[in-house]
Amino acid sequence: MKAIVKKEPGKGFSLEEVEIPEIKEPNDVKVKVLNASICGTDLHIWKWDEWSQQRIKTPQIDGHEFVGEVVEVGPMVKGLKPGDIVAAETHIPCGVCKQCKTGKMHICKNMQILGVDRDGVFAEYVVVPEIVLWKLDPSIPREFASVMEPLGNAIHTATAVDLRGKTVLITGAGPIGVMAVQVAKVSGAATIIVSEPSEYRMNMAKEMGADYIINPLEENLVEEVMKLTNDDGADVLLEMSGNPNALNQGINALTNGGDAVILGVFPTNPVPFEMNTAVFKGINIHCITGRKMFETWQIASEWLRTKKLDLSKVITHVLPMEEFEKGFEIMNSKKSGKIILKISE
Amino acid sequence: MKAIVKKEPGKGFSLEEVEIPEIKEPNDVKVKVLNASICGTDLHIWKWDEWSQQRIKTPQIDGHEFVGEVVEVGPMVKGLKPGDIVAAETHIPCGVCKQCKTGKMHICKNMQILGVDRDGVFAEYVVVPEIVLWKLDPSIPREFASVMEPLGNAIHTATAVDLRGKTVLITGAGPIGVMAVQVAKVSGAATIIVSEPSEYRMNMAKEMGADYIINPLEENLVEEVMKLTNDDGADVLLEMSGNPNALNQGINALTNGGDAVILGVFPTNPVPFEMNTAVFKGINIHCITGRKMFETWQIASEWLRTKKLDLSKVITHVLPMEEFEKGFEIMNSKKSGKIILKISE
Amino acid sequence: MKAIVKKEPGKGFSLEEVEIPEIKEPNDVKVKVLNASICGTDLHIWKWDEWSQQRIKTPQIDGHEFVGEVVEVGPMVKGLKPGDIVAAETHIPCGVCKQCKTGKMHICKNMQILGVDRDGVFAEYVVVPEIVLWKLDPSIPREFASVMEPLGNAIHTATAVDLRGKTVLITGAGPIGVMAVQVAKVSGAATIIVSEPSEYRMNMAKEMGADYIINPLEENLVEEVMKLTNDDGADVLLEMSGNPNALNQGINALTNGGDAVILGVFPTNPVPFEMNTAVFKGINIHCITGRKMFETWQIASEWLRTKKLDLSKVITHVLPMEEFEKGFEIMNSKKSGKIILKISE
Amino acid sequence: MKAIVKKEPGKGFSLEEVEIPEIKEPNDVKVKVLNASICGTDLHIWKWDEWSQQRIKTPQIDGHEFVGEVVEVGPMVKGLKPGDIVAAETHIPCGVCKQCKTGKMHICKNMQILGVDRDGVFAEYVVVPEIVLWKLDPSIPREFASVMEPLGNAIHTATAVDLRGKTVLITGAGPIGVMAVQVAKVSGAATIIVSEPSEYRMNMAKEMGADYIINPLEENLVEEVMKLTNDDGADVLLEMSGNPNALNQGINALTNGGDAVILGVFPTNPVPFEMNTAVFKGINIHCITGRKMFETWQIASEWLRTKKLDLSKVITHVLPMEEFEKGFEIMNSKKSGKIILKISE
Repeated sequence: MKAIVKKEPGKGFSLEEVEIPEIKEPNDVKVKVLNASICGTDLHIWKWDEWSQQRIKTPQIDGHEFVGEVVEVGPMVKGLKPGDIVAAETHIPCGVCKQCKTGKMHICKNMQILGVDRDGVFAEYVVVPEIVLWKLDPSIPREFASVMEPLGNAIHTATAVDLRGKTVLITGAGPIGVMAVQVAKVSGAATIIVSEPSEYRMNMAKEMGADYIINPLEENLVEEVMKLTNDDGADVLLEMSGNPNALNQGINALTNGGDAVILGVFPTNPVPFEMNTAVFKGINIHCITGRKMFETWQIASEWLRTKKLDLSKVITHVLPMEEFEKGFEIMNSKKSGKIILKISE
Repeated sequence: MKAIVKKEPGKGFSLEEVEIPEIKEPNDVKVKVLNASICGTDLHIWKWDEWSQQRIKTPQIDGHEFVGEVVEVGPMVKGLKPGDIVAAETHIPCGVCKQCKTGKMHICKNMQILGVDRDGVFAEYVVVPEIVLWKLDPSIPREFASVMEPLGNAIHTATAVDLRGKTVLITGAGPIGVMAVQVAKVSGAATIIVSEPSEYRMNMAKEMGADYIINPLEENLVEEVMKLTNDDGADVLLEMSGNPNALNQGINALTNGGDAVILGVFPTNPVPFEMNTAVFKGINIHCITGRKMFETWQIASEWLRTKKLDLSKVITHVLPMEEFEKGFEIMNSKKSGKIILKISE
Repeated sequence: MKAIVKKEPGKGFSLEEVEIPEIKEPNDVKVKVLNASICGTDLHIWKWDEWSQQRIKTPQIDGHEFVGEVVEVGPMVKGLKPGDIVAAETHIPCGVCKQCKTGKMHICKNMQILGVDRDGVFAEYVVVPEIVLWKLDPSIPREFASVMEPLGNAIHTATAVDLRGKTVLITGAGPIGVMAVQVAKVSGAATIIVSEPSEYRMNMAKEMGADYIINPLEENLVEEVMKLTNDDGADVLLEMSGNPNALNQGINALTNGGDAVILGVFPTNPVPFEMNTAVFKGINIHCITGRKMFETWQIASEWLRTKKLDLSKVITHVLPMEEFEKGFEIMNSKKSGKIILKISE
Repeated sequence: MKAIVKKEPGKGFSLEEVEIPEIKEPNDVKVKVLNASICGTDLHIWKWDEWSQQRIKTPQIDGHEFVGEVVEVGPMVKGLKPGDIVAAETHIPCGVCKQCKTGKMHICKNMQILGVDRDGVFAEYVVVPEIVLWKLDPSIPREFASVMEPLGNAIHTATAVDLRGKTVLITGAGPIGVMAVQVAKVSGAATIIVSEPSEYRMNMAKEMGADYIINPLEENLVEEVMKLTNDDGADVLLEMSGNPNALNQGINALTNGGDAVILGVFPTNPVPFEMNTAVFKGINIHCITGRKMFETWQIASEWLRTKKLDLSKVITHVLPMEEFEKGFEIMNSKKSGKIILKISE
């Protein structure tokens, strides 16, 4: 089969002919990949940055966001059959650690990540355990299904807090940030303010329904939010930029007792953080990893099935698998929403 | 001033000339009533049913739902000034009981109800303590502001549970039930099913955005819900009918682990209730009274200010104060949504 | 091996020599049963009441509460090995329904119950899937480990609500009720009131730490609770009796905004229930089935391991397996706490 | 009357004869102070540090922790009468801001602090508005009642999370930290680990019931916690030290999905904080200010009334008012728990 492979250490990927993977464990499922999409993590691996050099073992098939069709199931698979359309959670849990046993599989202590710790989905077929697969209503458009994993990040972040009637500040309007705009809107937020310096992304945020967009390099974010909120501050911060300034401005722009939800990962650890401000304001800070398995997926599916979400504005490019290189170049330019690779019909 | 008064025991009200009430306590506020609206409770008092005969002391001015303009404030009033537009919580809390001291003022042990335990708002002026007044953004349409109290019931009920991605069953499409349809929609519900036998109300539910409407007298509600939910059942029941059959059908139509939120008041106490079904399913039942002070009002205000809610379809009649009798007759026919009386300009 | 078996329809059980069960599925685990304990459900089956006649297929080994030692594991078992000491959840989930996929396995739509829908644990060996087993710290006394399943009911019920500083009313002091007394105490309840008519059980409740014990047949429960609470009412009701009077008295004895947690199963469905009282008071009613998998077990284990719970007063009888008949007779007399059968050394 | 006063800018206080304060507003209450206790904030003001120089206006009576007896009430006071024993919330809320109107009075936008923004309680009489007073059961020992305000900090912090069955790490065993040890124990924590370098405080933590005490200057806190928790990490961090190392060690010592509750205030703002660690672990961070009004006080009262808490080990010194200077010197040595000043009999 065809697969996009990191053959050896170094920049880039290559399109290779590799062996079709087979079911090994009784709970394995073999899936024909229909569409896959490119994540920031894939870009890191493509660039072969420091993190990738330490984490990735070559040769390896890249990719983890996808929609596919079940073609074969192991003898212990109970909930899926050939022909089912599925997406997959990319965090593969161990099933037996404390987290897995108490409803927190998404932060499994022994988690494996698809396309990072094992072969991924930029290939015609992939084999994964049933536990990570999520069956989809066939009416959900395939392009939307392919990006349900990052949509899940947006939903997991936004559903950490009740947004009804709230003023929500979203810092960072990358693909997940702009999906969060729509998610916040559907969740009953009264007002959505986005902080984002890139013009391309500001436009995308506007198209996805942001009420106000502030360029934090040109305006004082905290002051602008205070003006828009009768000096009360925003009720909720969704931090999606990984920028320490955005984080601290966000905390300062919150009302007393507000909620900060942090999905962004920061360039340094530790990061300079105005903790005293958070303490005096009585802020709750919710740190987010992955997606709840499968509460988050359930919400995503229902909103897509009932057309409450329309992701067409965030899916900016659909390319044939062969043009993957072009996809990564566009992704690298930061002038894109989600980029989809068509793998099979 | 003019007021709609229950002069003495017996059916009906009369329009009377009465003295303008004056500020007595330092925290009192005098409000010019602009619009008021008719509640089911007012209809009970109009009819002079058993409950009214025991509770109401004549002569008394009726009415509790309204929007008004502050005209005078007592010396200890801190948050309001003449000219402010306000609506009012109708549950007047004592301020010192255990509930009042621990964030549950809306279920104060010593609660007084406006227009029930003291003179109400079907009058040109009313005096109430500051604690129950809620200042409104002047951009909110006056008709909508007048019905914020029953809208608050719908919001308090619907916000008892996170509705994002959920299938919500609403039993009873009276004025509060149909407002709950819109509230559930704005709250991110995926699918809204309404159970209602009256054709007039079924139409109102449809116009407010219900996805499916079932006549429980003609169809088997539980079976229909199961068909619409892949045999899982609804995630959430909002019981707004006060009908014991609706209550029990609703419980049976829920998925395991679902939530029932009960606003309806039933004709008998006790009511025959399928508690074992609720126990085996692991249902949470949230019983609702009034509106949270003022979390519920805050959400209502924000949704009205940002036009997330449009109540024009539920406000079916606007009448001059003098035609109050007509208003009560229409209300009594059950062929109405909310009926508004114009008191002052 | 020896097993306590319902050989054919009719009252009673017999001790039989049956074949040792073997591992069939790759995720099966074979466990040597050390201690088992008798549940009310076992008594129903022993009596061969109407429910049993409809649900139980003979011949079948009875029993579901136990502690055992792993003796063999299937090839896909990841978290257990021979020699591990385990207890088991008796609700065997399907793993693929909506509940199982979203953190609610304990109310699985397709649940099988150990010792009810398949052979149980009153036998020297039992084979169950890994998913229901919970590994125990070997320091936990075996008698206590054997009753962790009903203890889990008490914990699941009591942990539905934050009990810190609360006045808790427990209606019904059977074995689970009295375990709930200790659980409430450990959970930080300020005052624990028990309603129970049986003198034997009243004593057991007292020994387990109840602050006040009321005989509802001799005193007015609601009045007594009001006297003890400065006329506020209890904060929390834990209903463990399955008695409709207890349920309604409990609701009437609650403070406005209180919580009712219902574990009891009632003799009729529907039951006459004062729903209007619950609505006007703004009560939350939490209906409880089983134990959360495995959040409840985690708490139970930790409290037993660190000796926060001492179940010695509730384990009133320990009998050799051969004297099971005596155990059922004592159980039937209602003059017992938990009765343990010693199966293996 | 006698009062401990900061007469003018500079270190120390002086005992002065000043005028007895009188009721001015209709909701004011005049209280005879019985006992008062010294807080870290008082020590800042005594030392006249930078913060004090900017915030405090002289002359001013210091002190905010106390227990007293009502001697006179204004005409609008509804819940108190002369003779009542009271403690007081020291955060005086405005009553009309968004926070005050929506159940978050303790983080009022316009908050005044007793003994900081207005005359305090180190005096024979104090006048405060009814809203901040909390009536006490007379059976609560006066010394314990005097420290209910800092006890409330410990309770507010510990009640941010359900502690039942949890392993709780408390960083910092000052007076509030050691009260938190006891609060965590009463809340059902399974294991309590304290990190504290001072030997005096380590002993106090031990006496209050800590299971393990680690000196973070001599041992590796994270490694020790991992050893004690089977490599899972603690479930909950209560940060009470205001030390950035403790904060970050605490985050690293948490299990995936754990909770951090932050009461400590740090010497710099921003502080270097390992946010990425918190994000990848999916930690919830609850920042705490003050005490919930009056949910926290309700719990404190009930636990003291029913003797669930025994604060005798944390109250290390009781001095006559005249020896206040000695009290501040001891406090400054860090070799004390709470220090009480006896003001009146």
